[in-house]
Amino acid sequence: EAQQMLNALHPAEIANLLESFPTTERKLLWELVDEENGGEVLLQVNDEVRSGLIQEMDEDELLAATSGMDMDDLADFMQDLPKTLTGEILRSMDNQNRQRLESVLAFPEDSAGGLMNTDTVTVRPDVSLDVVLRYLRMRGEMPELTDHLFVVSRFDHFLGVLRVSDLLTRDPSGQVDDLLDTHAVAIAADTPAREVAKMFEDRDLISAPVLDERGRLIGRITIDDVVDVIREEAERSILSMAGLGDEEDMFAPVWSSTRRRAVWLGVNLITALLAAYVIGLFEATIQEVVALAVLMPVVASMGGIAGTQTLTLVVRAMALGQVASRNSRALLFKELGVGVLNGLFWAGALAGIAILWFGRPAIGAIIAAAMVINLVVAALSGVGVPLLLKRLGIDPALAGGVVLTTVTDVIGFMAFLGLATIFLI
Amino acid sequence: EAQQMLNALHPAEIANLLESFPTTERKLLWELVDEENGGEVLLQVNDEVRSGLIQEMDEDELLAATSGMDMDDLADFMQDLPKTLTGEILRSMDNQNRQRLESVLAFPEDSAGGLMNTDTVTVRPDVSLDVVLRYLRMRGEMPELTDHLFVVSRFDHFLGVLRVSDLLTRDPSGQVDDLLDTHAVAIAADTPAREVAKMFEDRDLISAPVLDERGRLIGRITIDDVVDVIREEAERSILSMAGLGDEEDMFAPVWSSTRRRAVWLGVNLITALLAAYVIGLFEATIQEVVALAVLMPVVASMGGIAGTQTLTLVVRAMALGQVASRNSRALLFKELGVGVLNGLFWAGALAGIAILWFGRPAIGAIIAAAMVINLVVAALSGVGVPLLLKRLGIDPALAGGVVLTTVTDVIGFMAFLGLATIFLI
Ligand SMILES: [Mg+2]
Ligand SMILES: [Mg+2]
Ligand SMILES: [Mg+2]
Ligand SMILES: [Mg+2]
Ligand SMILES: [Mg+2]
Ligand SMILES: [Mg+2]
Ligand SMILES: [Mg+2]
Ligand SMILES: [Mg+2]
Ligand SMILES: [Mg+2]
Ligand SMILES: [Mg+2]
Ligand SMILES: [Mg+2]
Ligand SMILES: [Mg+2]
Ligand SMILES: [Mg+2]
Repeated sequence: EAQQMLNALHPAEIANLLESFPTTERKLLWELVDEENGGEVLLQVNDEVRSGLIQEMDEDELLAATSGMDMDDLADFMQDLPKTLTGEILRSMDNQNRQRLESVLAFPEDSAGGLMNTDTVTVRPDVSLDVVLRYLRMRGEMPELTDHLFVVSRFDHFLGVLRVSDLLTRDPSGQVDDLLDTHAVAIAADTPAREVAKMFEDRDLISAPVLDERGRLIGRITIDDVVDVIREEAERSILSMAGLGDEEDMFAPVWSSTRRRAVWLGVNLITALLAAYVIGLFEATIQEVVALAVLMPVVASMGGIAGTQTLTLVVRAMALGQVASRNSRALLFKELGVGVLNGLFWAGALAGIAILWFGRPAIGAIIAAAMVINLVVAALSGVGVPLLLKRLGIDPALAGGVVLTTVTDVIGFMAFLGLATIFLI
Repeated sequence: EAQQMLNALHPAEIANLLESFPTTERKLLWELVDEENGGEVLLQVNDEVRSGLIQEMDEDELLAATSGMDMDDLADFMQDLPKTLTGEILRSMDNQNRQRLESVLAFPEDSAGGLMNTDTVTVRPDVSLDVVLRYLRMRGEMPELTDHLFVVSRFDHFLGVLRVSDLLTRDPSGQVDDLLDTHAVAIAADTPAREVAKMFEDRDLISAPVLDERGRLIGRITIDDVVDVIREEAERSILSMAGLGDEEDMFAPVWSSTRRRAVWLGVNLITALLAAYVIGLFEATIQEVVALAVLMPVVASMGGIAGTQTLTLVVRAMALGQVASRNSRALLFKELGVGVLNGLFWAGALAGIAILWFGRPAIGAIIAAAMVINLVVAALSGVGVPLLLKRLGIDPALAGGVVLTTVTDVIGFMAFLGLATIFLI
């Protein structure tokens, strides 16, 4: 019945399903998941859901879930476990495995060292392929996602890789030496995860060796974990634009969701009050010409949209390393050109609408001028704000949108109401 | 000098660099790229930059660039070439390769068939591993990213896979039959690319066979191309939120960028005018109490932020297949709860500020009520708008934000100014 259908699914699919259920139903469903799937499912659900599930489990169940986990996964998982249990897990391991786990735990989760697994297959350079083949047959199995073996010196220094495809297609009497690829990518353990991802993407890698600062092989990173990094990074940038975290339970308690969301609303309230303050400076003008209050959000909003377009383009290019001093000038001029042209075009359209609506050509002229000003400012800020934020050490993907729309709101209201005060009153 | 440094880079890095240069400099740089790198670089740059580079090349250069391309890449590339040249390329191929290329071209670019390459290595079930090993040595090389060989019947029907790791670790006298994995994932050629990506991600695949509707092996998909699909999908969703395309040249001519961006600005102008129309309904009220014009953008903007948070969460969950009729009710109630609580909290804060600012408790009470109303509407729309859009066949990731902020603007202005008209005038 239900239980069989559930466990026929792949652990990633079970995880996806669990995340989609409200807390009570989720607990019931979790009871139905087979023990053999449990560990893998726990690794696949997001952090908040995982904490919830872990709280439902007793120590034995948790220990069972960790058995058979790869070292990289176990290292991640242990961070979510109670301290008493992590001690027990470490004690229950043999010396070699404990050392391996500790070597992964020594690095941040989002570095090459934190991503690596310790399941390397190593060979010496001075043996023949035939010896390697016999060794592998004796070994009986290979770690998943193995596309090459690592060739190391007697002191574990990484020398290069021996491709599995060479092992299969070349004459077995040849030496490892002769097929050794010394140009293969090797990754320093402290490389940030996003750089690792870029390397895998650009060079179409399946696995890559991780070296310590002395050039010794300490593990390997595989594409499956890199794919997870890429996906998580992409989700994080989308969610962070709305002030959301990427590891949240969609059915988190109302109260904790409220508190988390409140932060972003508070930031926005401050920026909105700033814009309101600017409007307040022109109260007398609005009292005289109420049409201004009707039209002012249009100018502000068009600036926000145009600026967000430029900002999105620039933030993306910055993430790809495509913005540098050599081209930021050309980029600025191009965006200014687009801003001026679209400013003129929509200024004309909006002026026409304003004149038809309120019958006052002066209002049309003023809103047109304000629109051009705001779209030029939007282009300037779209390029300038992310560059400035980056220099200040603030993530432009996170804060760029708020800062930019605050600028375009303030300038939009100020230009429109200011010009009206000068020329209409 | 420069040329050597440039060509020492990986093609993906050269492509990245080319994209970051304004058109004139880009052409100069492109001249310096070695012919052997040319094809791969062209495949890595985005569509618009590629068209620009192709226009700089004569037929011979283009033909040279296509030599050695994989079938999947060649199929993509041919879509950017002039018709005369695609004919010539097809004619210059031998029969077998032409048939292979045509089999890829027969499928949309964003389907399994369009993603597949034709470089499959197949073996029969009734031979021994030793025979397979000898065959591979005779063959001399294996396609990149080969983690298993495909086992097919005499009529090319796909039977399962033989893992390379088994080939290396098992007794060579065994039969292929005995190691045949018949549960391996096989992908129908018309599967959408994003489902293929999900499968690779969930099951940690390196490659997977592609079958036609009769179950015959017609190609295979490899993880490198799936990684590109994942990255492109992520970029598309970020860029489309700002109304931008994902294959645009950052240094496209000002005029063509202006036209492309104008579309989104035009959509926004319509929604902004709708909000302005609502404000216009209350001109008389604003004339009497100008403070309303000062405060009204705050209510609208807080609704937009709160709604965007809910929307982002729901759109993401929908993309993961986590929203269904079984849980949409619970999700709605949860979001309503968050909306009410945050509404009450920020209503209180804003009422205090409004009273301090304008000294009129009635305005404080009215803005508080409008805030609660708008945050409840925001929660409703954040859940409802994407569900509705999806039912209408419109991509919620693309249109959700505009629709939602239009709703929160209109309701924000209407609630605030409407309540003021009733209670203040
Ligand atoms: Mg995760
Ligand atoms: Mg974690
Ligand atoms: Mg990890
Ligand atoms: Mg790639
Ligand atoms: Mg792993
Ligand atoms: Mg894994
Ligand atoms: Mg704002
Ligand atoms: Mg394309
Ligand atoms: Mg393709
Ligand atoms: Mg995976
Ligand atoms: Mg490729
Ligand atoms: Mg390919
Ligand atoms: Mg809007």
